[in-house]
Amino acid sequence: MNNYRLTLAFDGSAFCGWQVQKNGESVCSAVQRTVQTILRHNTDITGCGRTDSGVHAKGYCANFKTEQEPEIPRFLASFNAIAPDSLRALHMEKVAENFHARYSAKGKTYVYQICPFHCLPPLLRGVAYHCPYPLDRQAMEQAAQVLCGEHDFAAFRAAGAKEGDSVRRIARIELTEKDFVLQIRMTGNGFLYKMARGLAGTILDVGKGLLTPEQVSEILESKNRERAGMTLPPHGLFLEQVIY
Amino acid sequence: MNNYRLTLAFDGSAFCGWQVQKNGESVCSAVQRTVQTILRHNTDITGCGRTDSGVHAKGYCANFKTEQEPEIPRFLASFNAIAPDSLRALHMEKVAENFHARYSAKGKTYVYQICPFHCLPPLLRGVAYHCPYPLDRQAMEQAAQVLCGEHDFAAFRAAGAKEGDSVRRIARIELTEKDFVLQIRMTGNGFLYKMARGLAGTILDVGKGLLTPEQVSEILESKNRERAGMTLPPHGLFLEQVIY
Repeated sequence: MNNYRLTLAFDGSAFCGWQVQKNGESVCSAVQRTVQTILRHNTDITGCGRTDSGVHAKGYCANFKTEQEPEIPRFLASFNAIAPDSLRALHMEKVAENFHARYSAKGKTYVYQICPFHCLPPLLRGVAYHCPYPLDRQAMEQAAQVLCGEHDFAAFRAAGAKEGDSVRRIARIELTEKDFVLQIRMTGNGFLYKMARGLAGTILDVGKGLLTPEQVSEILESKNRERAGMTLPPHGLFLEQVIY
Repeated sequence: MNNYRLTLAFDGSAFCGWQVQKNGESVCSAVQRTVQTILRHNTDITGCGRTDSGVHAKGYCANFKTEQEPEIPRFLASFNAIAPDSLRALHMEKVAENFHARYSAKGKTYVYQICPFHCLPPLLRGVAYHCPYPLDRQAMEQAAQVLCGEHDFAAFRAAGAKEGDSVRRIARIELTEKDFVLQIRMTGNGFLYKMARGLAGTILDVGKGLLTPEQVSEILESKNRERAGMTLPPHGLFLEQVIY
């Protein structure tokens, strides 16, 4: 069997997340329908993880298997002609037969976009969270450093999420500001359910003065979800890259 | 009379351009309605120029006069609470009584966004022109240099535009590429009707190999609109800054 990896970009506002749901079109089902239309046979699409409803992607990865050996540029052109315009396949490559979009991933980079300006410029609607308050950037940098490294992130897991190993390693968190947008770029070997939005929300709460960097350290140790900062809304979050 | 300058950002897809038209909501009328609601008296809004239907702005400037002396942060907050979310006032300042948004302008910077990638990433819909062809960047740079300087831009004026002085000085044209977008940033002391989109279209035609940089020089000299490159669609164009 040939195994192919697709790198996908999508506008999260058009989907109910990656996973097939009853309440709307999922990215997975849109990808599967498109791939099956081209291949003319059923195939399973394996995603790199469950992005939540509303979360955007610039570099989501998925793989599928087929006996066929499609010509890649032609397959991409067909995919992008058939798929809704809120979903695009940026790249495609043949990978080893044992490649698995989720289990082979070594890490991911998420970006959370905050607009700290007094108003939200119209073209940032739907792609940045508006937070018109003065932010202490230095304290936010400190909180980011506290969160880096290997920790038990149980306090940053969504309430009601399944129990299980919650130790993850965050390699780096970088804050950059440009054109009315503060980006929090987070790279780690894995993210628990809603963890990226919880980390960004905690860093933002430090920026607002609602938490100190020291309290972030205590929250990590407490493993208590109720103490962490707010889970920011999905429309500010982008899955930027999956690292293999 | 007090004279105030507003710096505005708007999503061009929501408006029929700056100028009041019969066929839709204009930016000018939305600004006027909002300002008059706050001031509780009629006032004229003077814009820095007529942006076309569909063109976006990150820094459009307009001014209005009033006997009142509104507190600026409060006025901005009111404006942005009342205006449609496709229009925002970024800044406001009190200016000299003889300041005129159009006649006082020393120049403008426009940015045209082209996506030269094989597909259009979903979040670039409506803000970049998709052109999935190989582009000769070096030839585009040469064409940009040909267009810089003081020239009679009659060949780049929209067909059917009013006659009149068509000499303008383009101070610089810069091409930068990042994240699937090629930006053509054009700064000049003035732009004729549809000139920014004609300059970008001509540079793009050079990139595609449809025109040579030498032919661009001949087109300028010919002053013949029919010879210039295509006028690109409005959704890729942004008025970035007005220089006073």
